[in-house]
Amino acid sequence: MDAKAIIIDALFGSGLNRPLSGLPALVTEHINASGNAVISVDIPSGLFAEKPATGPVVRAHRVYTFQFPKLAFLLPDYAEFTGRWTVIDIGLLPQAILAAETDHFYTMKADVEHIFHSRATFSHKGSFGHALLLAGSEGKAGAAVLAGRAALRSGLGLLTMHIPASLLEIIQTAVPEAMCSLDAQARFLSLCPDLKPFSAIGIGPGIGQASETAACFSRLIQTAKEPLVIDADGLNILATEQTLWAHLPKGSILTPHPGEFRRLAGQWSNDYHKIELQKALSKKFGIILVLKGAYTCISDPDGRLFFNSTGNSGMATAGSGDTLTGILTGLMAQGYASLDAAILGVYLHGLAGDLALKDQSESSMIASDIIEHLGQAFKQIEK
Amino acid sequence: MDAKAIIIDALFGSGLNRPLSGLPALVTEHINASGNAVISVDIPSGLFAEKPATGPVVRAHRVYTFQFPKLAFLLPDYAEFTGRWTVIDIGLLPQAILAAETDHFYTMKADVEHIFHSRATFSHKGSFGHALLLAGSEGKAGAAVLAGRAALRSGLGLLTMHIPASLLEIIQTAVPEAMCSLDAQARFLSLCPDLKPFSAIGIGPGIGQASETAACFSRLIQTAKEPLVIDADGLNILATEQTLWAHLPKGSILTPHPGEFRRLAGQWSNDYHKIELQKALSKKFGIILVLKGAYTCISDPDGRLFFNSTGNSGMATAGSGDTLTGILTGLMAQGYASLDAAILGVYLHGLAGDLALKDQSESSMIASDIIEHLGQAFKQIEK
Amino acid sequence: MDAKAIIIDALFGSGLNRPLSGLPALVTEHINASGNAVISVDIPSGLFAEKPATGPVVRAHRVYTFQFPKLAFLLPDYAEFTGRWTVIDIGLLPQAILAAETDHFYTMKADVEHIFHSRATFSHKGSFGHALLLAGSEGKAGAAVLAGRAALRSGLGLLTMHIPASLLEIIQTAVPEAMCSLDAQARFLSLCPDLKPFSAIGIGPGIGQASETAACFSRLIQTAKEPLVIDADGLNILATEQTLWAHLPKGSILTPHPGEFRRLAGQWSNDYHKIELQKALSKKFGIILVLKGAYTCISDPDGRLFFNSTGNSGMATAGSGDTLTGILTGLMAQGYASLDAAILGVYLHGLAGDLALKDQSESSMIASDIIEHLGQAFKQIEK
Amino acid sequence: MDAKAIIIDALFGSGLNRPLSGLPALVTEHINASGNAVISVDIPSGLFAEKPATGPVVRAHRVYTFQFPKLAFLLPDYAEFTGRWTVIDIGLLPQAILAAETDHFYTMKADVEHIFHSRATFSHKGSFGHALLLAGSEGKAGAAVLAGRAALRSGLGLLTMHIPASLLEIIQTAVPEAMCSLDAQARFLSLCPDLKPFSAIGIGPGIGQASETAACFSRLIQTAKEPLVIDADGLNILATEQTLWAHLPKGSILTPHPGEFRRLAGQWSNDYHKIELQKALSKKFGIILVLKGAYTCISDPDGRLFFNSTGNSGMATAGSGDTLTGILTGLMAQGYASLDAAILGVYLHGLAGDLALKDQSESSMIASDIIEHLGQAFKQIEK
Repeated sequence: MDAKAIIIDALFGSGLNRPLSGLPALVTEHINASGNAVISVDIPSGLFAEKPATGPVVRAHRVYTFQFPKLAFLLPDYAEFTGRWTVIDIGLLPQAILAAETDHFYTMKADVEHIFHSRATFSHKGSFGHALLLAGSEGKAGAAVLAGRAALRSGLGLLTMHIPASLLEIIQTAVPEAMCSLDAQARFLSLCPDLKPFSAIGIGPGIGQASETAACFSRLIQTAKEPLVIDADGLNILATEQTLWAHLPKGSILTPHPGEFRRLAGQWSNDYHKIELQKALSKKFGIILVLKGAYTCISDPDGRLFFNSTGNSGMATAGSGDTLTGILTGLMAQGYASLDAAILGVYLHGLAGDLALKDQSESSMIASDIIEHLGQAFKQIEK
Repeated sequence: MDAKAIIIDALFGSGLNRPLSGLPALVTEHINASGNAVISVDIPSGLFAEKPATGPVVRAHRVYTFQFPKLAFLLPDYAEFTGRWTVIDIGLLPQAILAAETDHFYTMKADVEHIFHSRATFSHKGSFGHALLLAGSEGKAGAAVLAGRAALRSGLGLLTMHIPASLLEIIQTAVPEAMCSLDAQARFLSLCPDLKPFSAIGIGPGIGQASETAACFSRLIQTAKEPLVIDADGLNILATEQTLWAHLPKGSILTPHPGEFRRLAGQWSNDYHKIELQKALSKKFGIILVLKGAYTCISDPDGRLFFNSTGNSGMATAGSGDTLTGILTGLMAQGYASLDAAILGVYLHGLAGDLALKDQSESSMIASDIIEHLGQAFKQIEK
Repeated sequence: MDAKAIIIDALFGSGLNRPLSGLPALVTEHINASGNAVISVDIPSGLFAEKPATGPVVRAHRVYTFQFPKLAFLLPDYAEFTGRWTVIDIGLLPQAILAAETDHFYTMKADVEHIFHSRATFSHKGSFGHALLLAGSEGKAGAAVLAGRAALRSGLGLLTMHIPASLLEIIQTAVPEAMCSLDAQARFLSLCPDLKPFSAIGIGPGIGQASETAACFSRLIQTAKEPLVIDADGLNILATEQTLWAHLPKGSILTPHPGEFRRLAGQWSNDYHKIELQKALSKKFGIILVLKGAYTCISDPDGRLFFNSTGNSGMATAGSGDTLTGILTGLMAQGYASLDAAILGVYLHGLAGDLALKDQSESSMIASDIIEHLGQAFKQIEK
Repeated sequence: MDAKAIIIDALFGSGLNRPLSGLPALVTEHINASGNAVISVDIPSGLFAEKPATGPVVRAHRVYTFQFPKLAFLLPDYAEFTGRWTVIDIGLLPQAILAAETDHFYTMKADVEHIFHSRATFSHKGSFGHALLLAGSEGKAGAAVLAGRAALRSGLGLLTMHIPASLLEIIQTAVPEAMCSLDAQARFLSLCPDLKPFSAIGIGPGIGQASETAACFSRLIQTAKEPLVIDADGLNILATEQTLWAHLPKGSILTPHPGEFRRLAGQWSNDYHKIELQKALSKKFGIILVLKGAYTCISDPDGRLFFNSTGNSGMATAGSGDTLTGILTGLMAQGYASLDAAILGVYLHGLAGDLALKDQSESSMIASDIIEHLGQAFKQIEK
């Protein structure tokens, strides 16, 4: 904040319900044009906590907000107004917070500590499940490598990777802890293996969209009895084959980035509309949607939204999503319910990325760094 | 222990020899239903130290036991009663302990320090033996990688890996310190190489159960003059070819997990029965059985049992057993007697897993982590 | 400096404009023959700051110079006279420094901090661009591996590597975060892929000079609309096909080492002549030339030169240049202007090499060490 | 030393020149039979400093010797008498030491600091040479990987590896900094590439002894003008083709372990005889012999012997010799004279192994650990 002066904006808090006009609107425009540093209290004046802004809004450089981040702070549309924000604990009793009726949640460490299961002494490989990952195609084997490594670092017991036959040496060299099941095709997936041995199934990283692969994906959707984890090209296939939606096993987790979400749900007019599209899709098909971004937003079929508090922009890098698919599949294999797996997995993925900043910068971070820091991330949430 | 109150259970110690009845039984049921935290002294009341419990048993959250863990604490059947237990040293003279007649031992650091050989200054590669590992098949090359890496980190002089021909690039890239001998078959093992150059032989990790591989395994058993280390699919083949048992070289080490042991020895009615099956099998065929689990149990032909004190549930992960096979084969190559190799190797394997918890959590641990911490494990037992 | 005595040479400072003669020349020869340690103040007597020396010059072991290194200190020709030099801050006001008219700059930390963009919270993979690297040939796949890994550690969003088909397994195993596009040829590049999806393109590392590859290179030069990063065999092809120069996209970055520069620009008579050749070539074709060496010299079309202050002789090692190509391509993908990318990338590359000296010596350093320390380098220039 | 008492043996120092007899011989036998801890001063009584012992010798557990280790301490034959020994500095002037006529030297840190060249600021890749390594065969690719990695960590500028064609992917994946030249044969070497571009050539690691490979080796020996580094199967081929000896370029370095040396020089009657065989072979063919062992012994054509002071028994492991070949080839490429390269390289190799003990134990050490610690080893000898 290299500025001439600091302006404290405490005009209107988050209780405001109509656009600024008259003098407040003029003052706001004056503040924004002043070149001074602006600190807003609770919320930048003119911004609404939970609905689209329609009038002038103070462009804050910093916001100190009370008790909880406002929904608007978590949406890309309003980033230009909030700058960097900090939550101030004003001592509301936990009961009071829990009583506040909301279907928007901000996932913090205490939430995932509650979800996380510790491992029993007399457990064995079988206690932690056997996951199946369908991943990879010629030229995109790395996505399979990353998803496989991340799954193994997420606590599962056994991992089988179903891959195009030509990927065998790559996968076995790079992911020795995984077993491989080979597709009849060399360069892309075409067949859906027998699903019986598996306690969780993930599909998508690097599979491409060959018509044989789309057919394989379609067969999987129609055969699977248990929830799936679906990412990347799996989502792209789903976007083009709307008839498949009805066959999605209840509780399946879909992990689109905004571009993929647009193909699935259509274009939105603003970020509140995007949220509504997400809620509607979750509800209609009984699925968990993980909309990836700065504050990854998880929706469940009951209309609740869970925004994630961990992660950084260094994770906007090739393969980052593949590692998330691996983590989610690994957690599902251990018996976590879909929503718990999504909340826990997204939190751990972001936390691992934050921990990777000890050795890396946001610029230098690669997806492998996230995997390498999963261990430290788990350690932070263990009781 | 988030509980209303703490109950100290010192009703009956480990001297008890008959099931609780009457008032003690009623008290026990009351304690278990109370929702309070329960701390037992010496042993939870109603539990027998060395035979199956037949009446009501106090469910302790913590046990403080005297001088040694009781046998029951080491068996999965009774985990629900013991919670977390701690041994209290009550100052029995070592002579007194040694005089106590028992064929059950709990392997501690002092025991393996005594077994471990340090290396002479003027030793050379030849001093530490040349091991042969028969491992791997298409899709399970990783098991061979892990076993090979672990063997190399266990002190042997030279390692040759006999592998299906198509695994060559994977193994040479991932395990450059090993030499490879190629099978005539590309995808699975079919031939048993000349055994003369080798001071130790391990077989099993990832070999699968193709009929040619079973034939190769059978030839190996009948040709080998020295003890073998047998794991994984080697055990599964053995389970289906009972005629082979008689040919097992005396002192061979078999390393089943409970599922594999069931195929070898049949179903048990309780954990004491399981122990008896294990003892009987060891005795009948003159072999060492390593029954893997939370307190891995090693049996020798003389009827002794050695329970291991190291390890954690993070090691219940894909490939963990393959690394143990590598370690045992590496120790045998250096001239350790079979029982010593088993006790030392199992202890080191568990200790490496415990040391890996510095960087990993139990959830994130993978088999490669165990291998990477073998160095620190050896350092802890060096004099 | 194990010497009999120390001689302080403060005879003539950097203001001198004609060669030493008479007594000063005799004294200089005496000093050089004395076997004593020589410390020069500002500049060794007889050496000119910015033009070739023509008379006798004091051979200093150390130089303490004022405010800025003299141009001569940055040129290999005069290394024998300057020994190790240190800049002394004499308190010139920054304004005074900026006012001094010069087209020679010495890039320091403050300069690159100014160039570096930090990453926005709501950024995503697409915010950081999609780079294309054309690299590798049979026997030189490692150059592609190193360039790819370095590009990924430089902050880009996505990376596609266009490679000869036989390199697929190598690249996918070693660089899992990259996607691969396969050339029709197995052993060398022959085809130029569609350039539309890419925000930056680098070519050269390990491509060899097969005639098909030269044709592919030629097509790329003539098709590309945006600046390219060109290194190694790309430069060698350019040296033999002078007609291509005119097609080079404006702002392209060429990164020759002295041998490659000689092929591009012809032989020079001394290091000042070399600089003039470099300036002329940059100006004529509107390109950025990065002449690699101890103080890598970057020229822009406006006639400015930027000498780099980081790096060490341990970076004179196989593959070091390939990592620079990767870094520059990665920065271009994120939208840095060519000159900024060159100055920032060269500085980071050298700084990463300096940071690698914590674990390595100049002798033991390999190119992979540079890549592993890029994260720490970025961290040092983040605000 | 868990013993009843400690006996100090200072009966006879290293001046003794005839075997013990009479009372001293009886006392010696009594000491050895006593079960007490024995500490000898200067040398165990009855042991000769520089010739074979012929009478009874005190078996010391520790020896404190004056100024220098005695030659006998460095020979395996007498390890049973010396236990662990320590040199005590008794303050002889360096001049006095240098004046003492000897052709046996014990290489210490100061010696290699003197040999080591630091790197000039304005150096470039070409300053540090281009090495050629001929290495590997089917099933022994790892030896080539280890030699290549070690060469790159030894300071050379460029490395080309000439390998059987089927090893290409392994080498390029595992050693990306090296370029590969492919043999016409897939599984073993058969052709000797053009030697002109190379400033140093190493041959041997993992090449096997196929007749085509022997022919290739033979052509290399007869074509090479500059000294070679020859190891492993190169030595075995040499042992069977005595006519090749006369063609060995003067100054070539051969690096046998005792088994290979026996094949080259014949059987010895004792360790002093072994030394004489080594000296004779060095002199006859004008070569450097590096006889690997606990105190690796280097002989030059002038009859001098240089015993190495670094290293430990953890280095008696698969691939350790391959890394030494890489180091020596890397040093030769930089222009070190053969004897200097041998003394420096053997010292660095041992020191890297000693430094690896920080993370590893002697049991867990693998050859890759040595390579990873070369950087720290170089740092210790830099001035």
